[in-house]
Amino acid sequence: MLIPTLLILSLLFTTSYASVHDFCVADLSQSDTPLGFPCKDPKKITADDFSFSSLSEPGNTANPINAYVTPAFTPQFPAVNGLWISMARLDMAMDGALPMHTHPGGTEMLYLIKGTTCVGFISYDNTLYAKTIKEGDTFVFPQGLEHFIKNCGTSPVFGITSFSSSMPGMQITRTDIPTEVVSGTTFLDSVQVKKLKGVLGGSG
Amino acid sequence: MLIPTLLILSLLFTTSYASVHDFCVADLSQSDTPLGFPCKDPKKITADDFSFSSLSEPGNTANPINAYVTPAFTPQFPAVNGLWISMARLDMAMDGALPMHTHPGGTEMLYLIKGTTCVGFISYDNTLYAKTIKEGDTFVFPQGLEHFIKNCGTSPVFGITSFSSSMPGMQITRTDIPTEVVSGTTFLDSVQVKKLKGVLGGSG
Amino acid sequence: MLIPTLLILSLLFTTSYASVHDFCVADLSQSDTPLGFPCKDPKKITADDFSFSSLSEPGNTANPINAYVTPAFTPQFPAVNGLWISMARLDMAMDGALPMHTHPGGTEMLYLIKGTTCVGFISYDNTLYAKTIKEGDTFVFPQGLEHFIKNCGTSPVFGITSFSSSMPGMQITRTDIPTEVVSGTTFLDSVQVKKLKGVLGGSG
Amino acid sequence: MLIPTLLILSLLFTTSYASVHDFCVADLSQSDTPLGFPCKDPKKITADDFSFSSLSEPGNTANPINAYVTPAFTPQFPAVNGLWISMARLDMAMDGALPMHTHPGGTEMLYLIKGTTCVGFISYDNTLYAKTIKEGDTFVFPQGLEHFIKNCGTSPVFGITSFSSSMPGMQITRTDIPTEVVSGTTFLDSVQVKKLKGVLGGSG
Amino acid sequence: MLIPTLLILSLLFTTSYASVHDFCVADLSQSDTPLGFPCKDPKKITADDFSFSSLSEPGNTANPINAYVTPAFTPQFPAVNGLWISMARLDMAMDGALPMHTHPGGTEMLYLIKGTTCVGFISYDNTLYAKTIKEGDTFVFPQGLEHFIKNCGTSPVFGITSFSSSMPGMQITRTDIPTEVVSGTTFLDSVQVKKLKGVLGGSG
Amino acid sequence: MLIPTLLILSLLFTTSYASVHDFCVADLSQSDTPLGFPCKDPKKITADDFSFSSLSEPGNTANPINAYVTPAFTPQFPAVNGLWISMARLDMAMDGALPMHTHPGGTEMLYLIKGTTCVGFISYDNTLYAKTIKEGDTFVFPQGLEHFIKNCGTSPVFGITSFSSSMPGMQITRTDIPTEVVSGTTFLDSVQVKKLKGVLGGSG
Repeated sequence: MLIPTLLILSLLFTTSYASVHDFCVADLSQSDTPLGFPCKDPKKITADDFSFSSLSEPGNTANPINAYVTPAFTPQFPAVNGLWISMARLDMAMDGALPMHTHPGGTEMLYLIKGTTCVGFISYDNTLYAKTIKEGDTFVFPQGLEHFIKNCGTSPVFGITSFSSSMPGMQITRTDIPTEVVSGTTFLDSVQVKKLKGVLGGSG
Repeated sequence: MLIPTLLILSLLFTTSYASVHDFCVADLSQSDTPLGFPCKDPKKITADDFSFSSLSEPGNTANPINAYVTPAFTPQFPAVNGLWISMARLDMAMDGALPMHTHPGGTEMLYLIKGTTCVGFISYDNTLYAKTIKEGDTFVFPQGLEHFIKNCGTSPVFGITSFSSSMPGMQITRTDIPTEVVSGTTFLDSVQVKKLKGVLGGSG
Repeated sequence: MLIPTLLILSLLFTTSYASVHDFCVADLSQSDTPLGFPCKDPKKITADDFSFSSLSEPGNTANPINAYVTPAFTPQFPAVNGLWISMARLDMAMDGALPMHTHPGGTEMLYLIKGTTCVGFISYDNTLYAKTIKEGDTFVFPQGLEHFIKNCGTSPVFGITSFSSSMPGMQITRTDIPTEVVSGTTFLDSVQVKKLKGVLGGSG
Repeated sequence: MLIPTLLILSLLFTTSYASVHDFCVADLSQSDTPLGFPCKDPKKITADDFSFSSLSEPGNTANPINAYVTPAFTPQFPAVNGLWISMARLDMAMDGALPMHTHPGGTEMLYLIKGTTCVGFISYDNTLYAKTIKEGDTFVFPQGLEHFIKNCGTSPVFGITSFSSSMPGMQITRTDIPTEVVSGTTFLDSVQVKKLKGVLGGSG
Repeated sequence: MLIPTLLILSLLFTTSYASVHDFCVADLSQSDTPLGFPCKDPKKITADDFSFSSLSEPGNTANPINAYVTPAFTPQFPAVNGLWISMARLDMAMDGALPMHTHPGGTEMLYLIKGTTCVGFISYDNTLYAKTIKEGDTFVFPQGLEHFIKNCGTSPVFGITSFSSSMPGMQITRTDIPTEVVSGTTFLDSVQVKKLKGVLGGSG
Repeated sequence: MLIPTLLILSLLFTTSYASVHDFCVADLSQSDTPLGFPCKDPKKITADDFSFSSLSEPGNTANPINAYVTPAFTPQFPAVNGLWISMARLDMAMDGALPMHTHPGGTEMLYLIKGTTCVGFISYDNTLYAKTIKEGDTFVFPQGLEHFIKNCGTSPVFGITSFSSSMPGMQITRTDIPTEVVSGTTFLDSVQVKKLKGVLGGSG
């Protein structure tokens, strides 16, 4: 009769580890810490916590950049908390583009499921590493570097991109900084800045 | 005349950083270190180093498990060296399955592009977290835990899976350990295997 | 008169650091975070918090595996919280064995105080690294790999084992997964188990 | 009309990242964790949180060591929480000295703004690496090693020192340990210890 | 006679640790690895390796941005290799400014020795955290975020800035990317880009 | 016939991972890096590399401190390289003591196999956490803090101590620093220093 055997075996090895975590699904109601949210009570976790369906539908690209990014980061998918990984879905209509941006918190690795994109990043020494990639290709954007992804094919783009962080962040240069600040910090004189801001929508 | 300005600006900020790396494409000809390979000479790096095409074609699933995993880890795609990320392509024919295995080096996050899979992992306290996921779903397998992925739909499976390590490893329990070792270490002799499975619901 | 000197010196250097922690004894009543529990109030910590006596007595090996593991992990010994170290005591009666298992969270290093054990682990490329070690020997099991420890001597075994994590976890392959899942994911039905073991040297 | 464009762009990329942190200003009212304090509510953070003025004034060196250290660590400057950096201001009157001490939590890098100091640290193999540095010089004290800084010039010293931790700690050997303990652990016999302690202010 | 005692004590504790490193001064002639350069032979290291004098002199600000950054990163000061810290000296003439840039590899903490600066960074949610800081003030720029430093006082600026990395990198948005690429990725149409590039010196 | 099945299975999953390491036994002939030595060729590794016998014999305590520490760190036991763990054996004759020292690289956890010891460490705020521990007890010394271990029983001491680093280092305050340096940095006047050094063997 082996049931008792396994039962005892299970008790032997599990009772003492009751508080030991093998995952830490975020409890978003508590304060974050520098390396992740406190863990939700393990007793309330089910398999559903580890599954996420929001990347199954295309994002709405009817917007000025003709592109949409649907994230599966800790706030959307709390199971990735503390696991140093996350994903996002990328959709681009014709002429869609993700403008130059950075992910301060991690490296990005793109897998292109449909379409053709022009991708690139800029290294510390100001070199542009750019390439056209097509369906089935993968491209890696090293941590923190400025990069872009642009639909340069003749059909919509659908890709899945992964990050080496549960909360990689995204930073796009904004344009509504007061003129006198931009002027010095962007190396443009104020006339140029006004022109630029006019073009982009700033009121400065 | 602003060309000289930018030229000087560029010189100002880049000459002193010449040896600073923003990426470290692996030089596989040198010895590995605990946290990655030495870097290839940056002067020989081009955009092609950051792009990888081998995940574009299905793997050959005409094998005993009716499944194939095509990795884009450091040895195949040296650009991910030191960036704590990698990917693999998963193909499964009908009845394909990746048997129980672990990735000692990292968490896995699966995005299912086509098909339906039964996935699951086992936690420290011996709980099975299992679920059927379908096209467009994502599932996360926390670091180091035993897990499986099985085609439980009616068509082939195609997925992209990411890892929180450039070299996540894969370990499948092997079965050709000498009998006298297995006997003690698996706590089952062959008769017990049958008995145990009977007790637990197996048909053997 | 130097007493005031030291007093002042002490005040100079300690008042400003009052909240700086040099240790973080776990407050198990709060939610865990991905890298450890919040700290207990330092004012309530005494030397007793850093000492642990439960490894002094042998575990009860009158159980199916004739072995017992007594942990000193964060839940039992909160002082190791955040310090990336822990220990456990291993006792094995005659024929005792720890079946194949992994510690997803860390490397294990065993020091054998009494007895003789057969130990081994399996690497990514499916190689078994196995060895018989005796009293006074040390063996290291690299992070996350499947391994076993078995009494293969003629007397009880007593060992102390350390981990590179405060909560290394322990995962033993369970066998009560529903048959239809096991069947696909272990790639063996019960008949195949027999056949396989026959092929590989088993008697079953 | 581009204002709506930017507005939408901003909404697209920011709403989904609302809980993602790019900084984690410490909420000192909550319990610390092994790697930092929980974060203050981001909505209550302003630019003032990232600025700190207490290093602008010299510390009061009218004390036994004729020196003062003003820290900007997490408890004083909560913005550095989780960012693996901090600073301190060092002031030394004539003959001022920071006695041998360690920072268990991090490397120290000193920039000397005014004066001349004798600095040094001791390596594992008991080698003293000592040097006189002057205004404008930088010196690095590797993590955890015993080191000292002493005014060996003819004017007051003012320096800024950085740490590779938000809470580097500081530990100076104390002298009021019970005589019988010091005796064995410092390799001095008890008569010598009493002498030593008398000299230093202990009552031993 | 105690000399032999110390000699023996020293031998006891140091011979076995001969290869243990407490620092790892970079050997810049070898290939870098993801987390730092291989170590120079410890037998060739002296106190001079840990001291650096190049931050003692102002940088030449007679350049287009009227500012200069003198780094003490691993390539200039190999002693910081592997110690997760570095420094740089900042000099700004009147109207000097460091344009918007990022340090992908680390947090920056500025101590302003002379002058008045306008500083700021932009968070993930596009908020500008900006402030005027004066002599003696400290400001922290969290890792990877876009930030600027500008002389907005009436005298030259001299500051010391620290980083939480030995090789923090610096990335300033470049402007000579091919027009057709910029066009999509910066959200400007090509006429606007040409105008912009003409202003900035591009030939596009 | 299942041999081909397993053979193929093995080939499928291992050929592509050939360069992926699951351990990194140190090649001590190459230069160290900040986080460990380059790896020895995996093809030359056997089970013997993971086993170490030098902790089986007592160290020779016929020395001035009546104590001996036998390390199993990377230089002695290259298998621990990159695994963030190591061990040492501690032997103490009657009156043996390890004087105040630090391990800058890691936390120490002691398991006392025989005897009785007085142990203690000093926290940042100058508190002594001291305790007498006996056979079977465990004590943890948090990273980088000054601590001591002293035989305060009536028989020899034998213990096994673990570290959270493969190369924890050990630093004991030395006494042969030039008098004029010690004088300022230890807060003793030069007469006192000479006395002290005379006592300890320095030549002053």
